[in-house]
Amino acid sequence: MPIARALLSVSDKTGLLDFAKGLAELGIEILSTGGTAKHLKDAGLTVIDVSEHTGFPEMFDGRVKTLHPKVHGGLLQRRDNDEDKKNAAKHNIPVIDLVAINLYPFEQTIAKKDVTLEEAIENIDIGGPSMLRSAAKNHRWVTVISDPADYPIVLAELKENKGETTLATRERLACKVFQRTSSYDAAIASFLNKEQVTQKTFSLSLPLHSELRYGDNPHQKSALYGNFSDYFVKLHGKELSYTNILDIHGAAALIHEFRRPTVAILKHTNPCGIGCADEDLREAWAKAFETDKQAPFGGVIVINRSMTLGLARIISEIFTDIIIAPDFDADARALLQKKKNLRLIQMLPEVTKTFSDPIIRSAPGGVLVMDSDPRALGLEDLENKVKTQRPPTREELEAMRFAWRVVKHVKSNAIVFATHDRTLGIGAGQMSRVDSCRIAIWKAKEAGLSLAGSVVASDAMFPFADGLIACSEAGATAAIQPGGSLRDEEVIAAADERKMAMVFTGHRHFLH
Amino acid sequence: MPIARALLSVSDKTGLLDFAKGLAELGIEILSTGGTAKHLKDAGLTVIDVSEHTGFPEMFDGRVKTLHPKVHGGLLQRRDNDEDKKNAAKHNIPVIDLVAINLYPFEQTIAKKDVTLEEAIENIDIGGPSMLRSAAKNHRWVTVISDPADYPIVLAELKENKGETTLATRERLACKVFQRTSSYDAAIASFLNKEQVTQKTFSLSLPLHSELRYGDNPHQKSALYGNFSDYFVKLHGKELSYTNILDIHGAAALIHEFRRPTVAILKHTNPCGIGCADEDLREAWAKAFETDKQAPFGGVIVINRSMTLGLARIISEIFTDIIIAPDFDADARALLQKKKNLRLIQMLPEVTKTFSDPIIRSAPGGVLVMDSDPRALGLEDLENKVKTQRPPTREELEAMRFAWRVVKHVKSNAIVFATHDRTLGIGAGQMSRVDSCRIAIWKAKEAGLSLAGSVVASDAMFPFADGLIACSEAGATAAIQPGGSLRDEEVIAAADERKMAMVFTGHRHFLH
Repeated sequence: MPIARALLSVSDKTGLLDFAKGLAELGIEILSTGGTAKHLKDAGLTVIDVSEHTGFPEMFDGRVKTLHPKVHGGLLQRRDNDEDKKNAAKHNIPVIDLVAINLYPFEQTIAKKDVTLEEAIENIDIGGPSMLRSAAKNHRWVTVISDPADYPIVLAELKENKGETTLATRERLACKVFQRTSSYDAAIASFLNKEQVTQKTFSLSLPLHSELRYGDNPHQKSALYGNFSDYFVKLHGKELSYTNILDIHGAAALIHEFRRPTVAILKHTNPCGIGCADEDLREAWAKAFETDKQAPFGGVIVINRSMTLGLARIISEIFTDIIIAPDFDADARALLQKKKNLRLIQMLPEVTKTFSDPIIRSAPGGVLVMDSDPRALGLEDLENKVKTQRPPTREELEAMRFAWRVVKHVKSNAIVFATHDRTLGIGAGQMSRVDSCRIAIWKAKEAGLSLAGSVVASDAMFPFADGLIACSEAGATAAIQPGGSLRDEEVIAAADERKMAMVFTGHRHFLH
Repeated sequence: MPIARALLSVSDKTGLLDFAKGLAELGIEILSTGGTAKHLKDAGLTVIDVSEHTGFPEMFDGRVKTLHPKVHGGLLQRRDNDEDKKNAAKHNIPVIDLVAINLYPFEQTIAKKDVTLEEAIENIDIGGPSMLRSAAKNHRWVTVISDPADYPIVLAELKENKGETTLATRERLACKVFQRTSSYDAAIASFLNKEQVTQKTFSLSLPLHSELRYGDNPHQKSALYGNFSDYFVKLHGKELSYTNILDIHGAAALIHEFRRPTVAILKHTNPCGIGCADEDLREAWAKAFETDKQAPFGGVIVINRSMTLGLARIISEIFTDIIIAPDFDADARALLQKKKNLRLIQMLPEVTKTFSDPIIRSAPGGVLVMDSDPRALGLEDLENKVKTQRPPTREELEAMRFAWRVVKHVKSNAIVFATHDRTLGIGAGQMSRVDSCRIAIWKAKEAGLSLAGSVVASDAMFPFADGLIACSEAGATAAIQPGGSLRDEEVIAAADERKMAMVFTGHRHFLH
């Protein structure tokens, strides 16, 4: 059955005119509302107002326009049911075969600064979702468009098929509707929920961003959903893998802990080395790379300034999987793009938004949802958090601040030795803390770096004194850790005995 | 303003009668539809049919009942707006101040075996969500109930406040509506999506299972969604934490790789030691524990047989966070329950289903979804996968099978030294493979275990010969690894030179 009547009601007018003209050319009658109707009439199209169609005026400032049996009956009646046909004829409810609707911009409204509750609530669309859902339920006969990107696709199909769409297309579009209404209402719930204590249901509906080469391993298929491209742009190189995305996520969060020009190198989602400099990225790179010259092979490099030719020249000497930067100088990019197996990723300023998104992870039969871990906590007022007889020197305090920011991004149990601007040894992902200490010490030794006068950071409390003692013996003169062990007194005594300075942040930064 | 008029339309009649009677006693007029109206009338209540109220008959088999300006205008009009009041009076649209609605049981319908597409689609509620959303948008004045659990709460409030509800309650209820409609539409989208070739959208809607004590850290709130209790039952102990759930997940998957009586100990989501025995769990425990006697402090123990009193006595000597078993002998349970800080978890047989669920993880702006990693791959036909001059002995082959099953569950880069029934050293979560080798060797040495004659497993290829050489020098006589490095020939040559036996599984088991 060719489409006889369409209803158009959109807040985003992108592509609307071309689409409506196309429908008109096919002899399809157009119903419309308010601003959409005006827009189409101004362009010379013949349009019937919905209120004219229903015989009922728009009222309550447009809150009630289309919530009428003549609209919903037009959408919901079954075209192959005699009873339905009889009822429709009796009550003069002609079919509506196509709707194109997009919703009041609730998400954009609440993204504005200083949005009021009233403004947000006025932007909760009621009529739109109702029509979308009616049309989608009856997709066996009705074509429903919730995304302007589908206008040309549908129009082409109508032209090809004598004014009809295919069932496959209608199914796809119906599915898109429920995805859209679900995510729309999830946004509303989450906005209203800010005031609430508990969220009783966890809902998620995200569009496919891309299928990935594979997951953790080639025998595991994987895909990325959401709006990754709003935050990262791939400038060069082959497709991203699952592990690449994990690494990019971690790398971006890590580098945003630092304001000075900084370079970090990551591998298997753990930092291998980080360095800061006053100006020259090459200097920052040298400090990061010296921490571990072996692990970066095939790793991820992230910087917080535009990539310079100077640094690009040095990096291109070693085999790297991904380089992430806020920008790439043209000459640096030209040089790096010569490498086929290297991916260049531009990190957009908006990425900081994602750091406060909840963290989602599979659990048996469902998911775990957790608040994000904000910027490294417990760094304010360090001078008053000293637990040892000797207070830290100014230099040690700066090194504590640096080391604490790094250790937050290392998988637990995590130990980091550092000065104020560089890592010296990183102990990651161990089942006991003292092992992480030993690994960090041994890594520094392997790298030929002295730990004398260094600071050590521990992502969670030292449960016993053994780990701290090992760090002291390796050369650390100060420690930063959350505190909170039953044996804190023993740990403090061990520090005092060794003339170490130690602060308790009061917060831990486990990362699993 | 006291509530004058309520609209009740529910498919789940739980608690309905008491609630409606309470409303009637407060002098509130009741509008209702179809089955709900009949149910109330049968109980002797005075009820006005919605079709009587609107003057428009129910039609299309009930597909269009409430989608009428008189219903939605009644819900959406602003009680403090003169223009709205004028319009309402002119068109005879009295206010509706309270709605109680629950939706057609779409989720239950699609959960049925052999559900047809028609049946599912007929169970997509249109009128219900529209009314819920109208009422929720206008919650400044309208009370909206989407969950029978709220009937007594609202009724009590009405009685206390002379027929009014509080704004705080109305806000809470409005938020619940959008959570409900969002998850309802997510379920529909996900159902319709099954018919599609590619899953263009990822939708998820899971009920709250429990709020957790906290997430990775105390400053991160966390909750578990889904049906965890279908797979694990907490028999004893305090609430589970986020890390507990991750550990339980990993522990269950690991122990299911083994058929003989087996004990595994985990910490920070990594195995610290695993042992198998022919009969006695105590023997298996001894082998697991000997691998690392320090890390298990505060760890997770998992076994694949019912917990015996004999093993319980031994375990209760050390501080453990969680014990997981398919069952607990009564005397063993009685003994272990004396410990307040120990959690006892029964792992139900159904848990194996969850091992094939897709793996979900946060990514910037969305989620990564990945196929699960099945049981350890590449173990069939090992005899024909030998790459070295010397083939493995029967004993080495058995040790390879054991080590490969373990290494799959260790965070990458992972190295495991083992015999046929026990781990000897585990190197986990390092940024370079050779470091994992060194850690595993050093851990074995610390534990006083000899690696002479052992087998080493590597979760991914040895990229260079250095790691393998280190393992050989430590005593390993055989290696199992995926192969696939550009330098495979060098690695094989190094093995041959040392008279090692080595097989390539052809599959890797990265775990991040």
